[in-house]
Amino acid sequence: MDVYDDIEHSAKRLKNLIHHTPILTSSAINEMCKATLYFKCENFQKTGSFKMRGASNAVLQLSKEQQNRGVVTHSSGNFAQALALAGKKSGCKAYIVMPKNAPDIKKAAVKEYGGIITECEPTLAARHHTANEIQQETGATFVHPYNDYNVILGNATAGKELLEAFPSIERIVVPVGGGGLVSGIALSALSYGTNPTVFGAEPANVDDAFRSMASGHIEQNATTNTIADGLKTSLGDITFSLIKTHVTEIIRVSEEEIVAAMRIIWERLKIIVEPSSAVSLAAILTNSAKFKNQKVGVLLSGGNIDLKKVPF
Amino acid sequence: MDVYDDIEHSAKRLKNLIHHTPILTSSAINEMCKATLYFKCENFQKTGSFKMRGASNAVLQLSKEQQNRGVVTHSSGNFAQALALAGKKSGCKAYIVMPKNAPDIKKAAVKEYGGIITECEPTLAARHHTANEIQQETGATFVHPYNDYNVILGNATAGKELLEAFPSIERIVVPVGGGGLVSGIALSALSYGTNPTVFGAEPANVDDAFRSMASGHIEQNATTNTIADGLKTSLGDITFSLIKTHVTEIIRVSEEEIVAAMRIIWERLKIIVEPSSAVSLAAILTNSAKFKNQKVGVLLSGGNIDLKKVPF
Repeated sequence: MDVYDDIEHSAKRLKNLIHHTPILTSSAINEMCKATLYFKCENFQKTGSFKMRGASNAVLQLSKEQQNRGVVTHSSGNFAQALALAGKKSGCKAYIVMPKNAPDIKKAAVKEYGGIITECEPTLAARHHTANEIQQETGATFVHPYNDYNVILGNATAGKELLEAFPSIERIVVPVGGGGLVSGIALSALSYGTNPTVFGAEPANVDDAFRSMASGHIEQNATTNTIADGLKTSLGDITFSLIKTHVTEIIRVSEEEIVAAMRIIWERLKIIVEPSSAVSLAAILTNSAKFKNQKVGVLLSGGNIDLKKVPF
Repeated sequence: MDVYDDIEHSAKRLKNLIHHTPILTSSAINEMCKATLYFKCENFQKTGSFKMRGASNAVLQLSKEQQNRGVVTHSSGNFAQALALAGKKSGCKAYIVMPKNAPDIKKAAVKEYGGIITECEPTLAARHHTANEIQQETGATFVHPYNDYNVILGNATAGKELLEAFPSIERIVVPVGGGGLVSGIALSALSYGTNPTVFGAEPANVDDAFRSMASGHIEQNATTNTIADGLKTSLGDITFSLIKTHVTEIIRVSEEEIVAAMRIIWERLKIIVEPSSAVSLAAILTNSAKFKNQKVGVLLSGGNIDLKKVPF
């Protein structure tokens, strides 16, 4: 396996399905951080998050016969929308299992992108069971939102774009939920630029990745009490193994620090990001010594937020 | 006078002072409008609005001796911040006359960019009087926020960038307040691209430009009751003359249409724009027949909004 080739092939495959997203800078934020920050804006990605990269890459790796039978996943978040659109663009049915208490706005978005929703009870067991049933009935292929090498390689293309545009970047900070994005970025850092160090950033309230790094095995979260709703999930075995090997450190931030960083991004960059995106800037702002005078890539993972629930 | 040369010289002069702002598209918004829209994002401009272009161009046209004596304007809005930063970057003092009831957030922004604020009573007469006094005391040059040919030429560089990137654009829609931006864009449309038609867009509550076009002389607004706080001002003689000659039509939109368009921009483009920016999309959405199947440039004029005052 050659990681560089894998990422290059993924990027070629995705070329017409995804946006090459802009990279923004702000002299005001640079002054606050005493560093030079390059914001990779996956909030501008199709379906509003980086998930479109991995979902598309997974769908495109299937045989024509598999695509004809469709794909299935369980998600109430950004991966649901991404797999729906990725399926639609490949003429492949996308079955999305969503908990029945998922917000209407999220169900509407999945439907808009052509996803076929099956509702289930809001438990992990019910999700698995329902997805299994759909697989057996339809022959659809299950696509995991993050613990899947093709999904991770799709995500890696965001790192390729960032490091090809700014090869002298020295550090990259990435929000960590299930670990699919940080794993992809870590792989891209092996192949592009000049060996930047990769940091994960995580809400302290759901610090399973931090604890997993410390204990050496995958830890779970006792609570999901964070505003960063994309970062509640635990690591998978594939993402944990990549993070252990290639990610230097997981930085934890408080809820207040996330909201403050989100506000800075909205006010200074004039862009809409969801709370999960702001966790990376929060990690830099609260660990300024670590990033001082460095060129730092900052992954903004998505921009899907209910405007009625803006925390300021 | 050769307009093309004037704009080219302005663009060269401004090159290192301003951002070449991104142009965004959205397939979802295109579907709503049945047209292809190119959003020119001046909300990403330095100081958060297109005003930085005109302010910088005016300051850079002054002699070294004039710059040493400083510049003065009266504004409570985006031009105040722009002239403050344009002055700072040229080593030129910027005296800003602001009504004493201007929001603290606006005063703070002007100070942050190095502007020297003089407060006055909140009347037009007091503004003029105070600016006059400063001119006499300091020898500073008065720079008008829009009724100034150098300011208009600076604004025109936004049109140059848009039409150089997408030369086949057929129509351009621009918000109209004092008319400085639409005048500049109309001049750029004479010199770049393939003769696109330029439309102004205005809140119906402050439709002075619409009425001025109808009556043939500059009309005033009886009220300033609009959420689009950048568009309350009346035309000047220079901007009115350019608009009469080069702008096809002024389209009026309601307050509800402005808020709805603003929400679409926030949700679909994932960017922060102020209400004044949304007036151009509102004009397209409410006049779909006029723009159907056309390639349309849409000027987003700025992104300075108090996040506490978001109307949704």
